[in-house]
Amino acid sequence: MLAGEIIAPEDIPPFSRYLVDGYAVKAKDTYGARESMPALLVPAGEVPVGEVTEINVADGEAVYVATGAMVPSGADGVVMQEQARRSAEDLEVTASVRRGENICFKGEDIGKGEVVLRNGTPLSPFDIGVLAALGITRVPVFQQPLIGLVSSGNEVVPADIVPPAGKIRDINTHTISNLLKAGGCSVLFAGIAEDSLEDLTRKLTSMRECDMILLSGGSSKGQADFVTAAVKELGGEVLFHGISIRPGKPTIFATLWGKPVFGLPGHPVSCSMVVLRFVLPLIRRMKGETGPIRSCATRGILGTNVPSSYGVEEYVRVKVERQEGSLVVMPIFAKSSVISTLSKADGFFVIPEGAEGLEAGVEVEVYPLA
Amino acid sequence: MLAGEIIAPEDIPPFSRYLVDGYAVKAKDTYGARESMPALLVPAGEVPVGEVTEINVADGEAVYVATGAMVPSGADGVVMQEQARRSAEDLEVTASVRRGENICFKGEDIGKGEVVLRNGTPLSPFDIGVLAALGITRVPVFQQPLIGLVSSGNEVVPADIVPPAGKIRDINTHTISNLLKAGGCSVLFAGIAEDSLEDLTRKLTSMRECDMILLSGGSSKGQADFVTAAVKELGGEVLFHGISIRPGKPTIFATLWGKPVFGLPGHPVSCSMVVLRFVLPLIRRMKGETGPIRSCATRGILGTNVPSSYGVEEYVRVKVERQEGSLVVMPIFAKSSVISTLSKADGFFVIPEGAEGLEAGVEVEVYPLA
Repeated sequence: MLAGEIIAPEDIPPFSRYLVDGYAVKAKDTYGARESMPALLVPAGEVPVGEVTEINVADGEAVYVATGAMVPSGADGVVMQEQARRSAEDLEVTASVRRGENICFKGEDIGKGEVVLRNGTPLSPFDIGVLAALGITRVPVFQQPLIGLVSSGNEVVPADIVPPAGKIRDINTHTISNLLKAGGCSVLFAGIAEDSLEDLTRKLTSMRECDMILLSGGSSKGQADFVTAAVKELGGEVLFHGISIRPGKPTIFATLWGKPVFGLPGHPVSCSMVVLRFVLPLIRRMKGETGPIRSCATRGILGTNVPSSYGVEEYVRVKVERQEGSLVVMPIFAKSSVISTLSKADGFFVIPEGAEGLEAGVEVEVYPLA
Repeated sequence: MLAGEIIAPEDIPPFSRYLVDGYAVKAKDTYGARESMPALLVPAGEVPVGEVTEINVADGEAVYVATGAMVPSGADGVVMQEQARRSAEDLEVTASVRRGENICFKGEDIGKGEVVLRNGTPLSPFDIGVLAALGITRVPVFQQPLIGLVSSGNEVVPADIVPPAGKIRDINTHTISNLLKAGGCSVLFAGIAEDSLEDLTRKLTSMRECDMILLSGGSSKGQADFVTAAVKELGGEVLFHGISIRPGKPTIFATLWGKPVFGLPGHPVSCSMVVLRFVLPLIRRMKGETGPIRSCATRGILGTNVPSSYGVEEYVRVKVERQEGSLVVMPIFAKSSVISTLSKADGFFVIPEGAEGLEAGVEVEVYPLA
């Protein structure tokens, strides 16, 4: 993302140039020309592409130009090749051309002194094209935010070992770190914390330089107590514990060293939905992005009734199927611990907190999961 | 993208576990319990999270369990903490619980032997989560396609030099290579070719190992002749020259050494639209992706009439603005040489070849540009 604004140091294009192959002429010499009554012009040389020309196009003259050639002095129009016939001495022009048509004028794309890119712009391939046009091949960018990530729970072991009986492999670290990297962040993984004040405090301290800290796990009462205690021990403040959403209810939000800290639910689906709904949008704002939080949705027709609780914003994972030309949205009903449903889902829709479910047949907006 | 299919080597979760904090019970012992008439159960120890338990839950007993704990033998239900009151000797249960509720059963997420990911799946963060759950931290993936890229034109100079009079900087190389990288490709840049058969042939030969070759520039008649001649010289075949689209009409498509070759228009907007509309979708198919070519669009109301020619599929760059709750789509009218319009645009919509323009007020689907 661009740090600072870019002001055009020059005009683009730097000279007026042709957009088609044809003949540079004075437009007035073609007025009234048609197939049955061509205008006759005198061929008078060529402007080679990529070269400066000293040619001056005089009344009644036509100078050959290919796409990209510089507009010679005296010319204000161009006869396209298809509208001209070359004979031994003449050029027969079979159509009338307008002044300025098929010419890209000096500075028409970008004017010298124009602000072309503003501070905080995520650089698209086209923005990079604009910079290339201006000869700017290096620009200052914001550093990617560094997000600290720690998994917690006595039952959690790294994914690359065989879990002893009673334990399970760490899923959230892998899901979240890939969501964060796709969102333009660097990730510092502090490891898996035991459910103890001492280890949590140590892990948090190791992430002190991060711009944001995410603790996954900690949805159980005892774990949440450790997270709260560890944040306080280090001088931070827990702002709230619990959001009226499903899945994702037992989310903790705190500040520590002036930085945001999320205590994310341990269930993989809950954890991922909170990252999608709250963490990634906050990161976009921290990066200075000002666009809409959700920009791109597919609309479809709900294929079945979906119950929900009044007062809870609910995120429903769905498959989207094309049936007879319309998109049918089918909810995937599964527990929030079931990661495979996120892998199979095409997206999710939102039931607002003021609704007690939605009925089959209504139109819903399906947001992508990643 | 995954090469080969992944079959689950084990059940996930590997044992039945609790999804909430509470008390493991026999569900029948709670039937009929309510706030005014609690069921009285006998506290009988705890199952620590992450450990194997030998406890057997007998009739009338309640064993403390936190989220993630293994389900002990004898238990088939769980009383949530909020529905239980602990006294000196008893546990008062104030709600009836259902068998199996709030338990994630062994293999409920992923069953041993199940095909969890198919050949050719682009791996999402959630797919990586599924792999982590199974302990699979390395998978075979397809190599990224290698796309050869060459700019052509005597008027084109590299972006990092000051163009002599009559010449312009290379834009397309930068725009296209960033579009390709965002699309999961590696890019080999062969440089800027002169408009000569010899140099074009040499540049094409240097890209022989690529999976696809893109030549940008060559929209003028003379350049197209060189491209055609160079492809033939090397034993390839030009399949067509010209597509009924705007911008992008003078596109060349050829095969050479069994690989697709695109001759892309030189104007930056035309070039980019052909990459978005034809090149990237072809690459997705070459990679084995089977999903829809365009999956994600924003719908909005066209804010003004837009003319178009019958028989031409037209791509109209637009800005999308929110006005009084609805999205208004405003076309950006500019020449196809003007790269800055792509940088400013929010997306594009398509006027099909059978229409002579669209009228203000109709709903259009706006596709993202990158």
